[in-house]
Amino acid sequence: MTFGAQLAAAMDKFGPLSVGIDPSPQMLAHWGLPDTAEGLLTFGQAVVEASERSVAAVKIQIAFFERHGSRGIAALEQVLAFARHHSLITIMDAKRGDIDSTMAGYADAYLRPDSPLEVDAMTLSPYLGFDSLAPALDIAAEHGKGVFVLALTSNPEGASVQHARNEDGVAVAAMIAEAAAERNRGASPMGSVGLVVGATVGDAIRALPVPLSALNGPILAPGVGAQGAGPEQLAQVFHGITRNVLSHQSRAVLMAGPFVEKMRGAIQAAAGAAQFALRGDE
Amino acid sequence: MTFGAQLAAAMDKFGPLSVGIDPSPQMLAHWGLPDTAEGLLTFGQAVVEASERSVAAVKIQIAFFERHGSRGIAALEQVLAFARHHSLITIMDAKRGDIDSTMAGYADAYLRPDSPLEVDAMTLSPYLGFDSLAPALDIAAEHGKGVFVLALTSNPEGASVQHARNEDGVAVAAMIAEAAAERNRGASPMGSVGLVVGATVGDAIRALPVPLSALNGPILAPGVGAQGAGPEQLAQVFHGITRNVLSHQSRAVLMAGPFVEKMRGAIQAAAGAAQFALRGDE
Repeated sequence: MTFGAQLAAAMDKFGPLSVGIDPSPQMLAHWGLPDTAEGLLTFGQAVVEASERSVAAVKIQIAFFERHGSRGIAALEQVLAFARHHSLITIMDAKRGDIDSTMAGYADAYLRPDSPLEVDAMTLSPYLGFDSLAPALDIAAEHGKGVFVLALTSNPEGASVQHARNEDGVAVAAMIAEAAAERNRGASPMGSVGLVVGATVGDAIRALPVPLSALNGPILAPGVGAQGAGPEQLAQVFHGITRNVLSHQSRAVLMAGPFVEKMRGAIQAAAGAAQFALRGDE
Repeated sequence: MTFGAQLAAAMDKFGPLSVGIDPSPQMLAHWGLPDTAEGLLTFGQAVVEASERSVAAVKIQIAFFERHGSRGIAALEQVLAFARHHSLITIMDAKRGDIDSTMAGYADAYLRPDSPLEVDAMTLSPYLGFDSLAPALDIAAEHGKGVFVLALTSNPEGASVQHARNEDGVAVAAMIAEAAAERNRGASPMGSVGLVVGATVGDAIRALPVPLSALNGPILAPGVGAQGAGPEQLAQVFHGITRNVLSHQSRAVLMAGPFVEKMRGAIQAAAGAAQFALRGDE
């Protein structure tokens, strides 16, 4: 079963929300946890417990585990095993991007079965060109894994790169979307090469334009909640392509921690809002 | 002492070469080493020994350590300690790029004194806009550390993003260079916000143009050796700004391993060629 098919099934079953495992120093302090590898593990396990059977996926900000070196990464390995045990789809938000054997090395680290840090999908950054990501896309395809390539990100500074145009007048984000669609052609129910498109991008998808309706792959949409977008923005920004959208929330629901039951309530409310905004007709 | 000053002194003393610690599966096999954390450690220590007092810096491809999860990262911690003990400047080629607290998390992981993975500088990827890197640049400045921001990379696919132009006709790579120069203004002997510009970019610096002569910071230049550029390309591509260039070589010198003495010979030959190409007038 491909990642695209797995994710489509999980979104149908649990709704189109992913929750962040983002143990920033500030969030650890808010939870009353120490800024240590042990704190990371406790945090990650609590988010998994609160998310189980309520969301399609969890997305991990690996930066916060890298802060603690090998001990942080060991905690992450335990969190990933716990998430797998709870049947959650795991997305590593690593935003890796490189060339040749180095690009393959990153894909090997996160998408190879039985790798210590194996997940179901990872995010990739295409500053070196979409085609530089090919070794990772090939490894993902080989193992039924997925990727989400940054296209149009949720932060305002992203436009300086992502809205720039090539000699034919095509925007960078549009080139990325076209290349991803090419990889997804013919896949059913959808392909495994996703994009990251912020729910905060306003009219940019239509204005540039970025041809998302041809993607035939998942769209990971951060920006809802603490970054300012609401369910209305989700529905508006992704009008016509809402069925492929996985809405992502971190801070807004994590602030409901550290108590698992209270956080589960916040997650279920967010999942309901995402379901209504993106699949309200069902 | 800032990173810019440290690197300038090291380049004056040992010449403008950095050597890669890039234990790809293929290179480990070439060396007869196992593809394990122990293999990574042996490899890294040998490159450090061969580089000591012959080059300005070593640059680590962290992807190859991430492949082995927490055990790989523990090996990297030991390699970094070994490099520090041998007084080599360390550059983590991580190509990280994110926003807000996540961007700060990556900088914290690699640039905070006493972090398990502390290095002297790290590479950053600006797909989310140069300004999204601000938390990392601030942390670097606070601790006298450096960064190298990807501008014009050595791979041909990079042009699709890096040559794209904004509404004023300015290329993405040029915007990155201008923003880095802004950060380096007034620093002496040079600032600590460097760029990555491949030695293989041909005429692009003049053609786009990318205003490197105003950078007042270091330029990390991969592409020499296995990627096809020679000393002539170094001298041509960086004509007029050669004093700020740190030429980087990986595969070509690593192929001389596993024997340290033979590798040291290859490194010293490469260092001599870089010195002649970039500082031949001295």
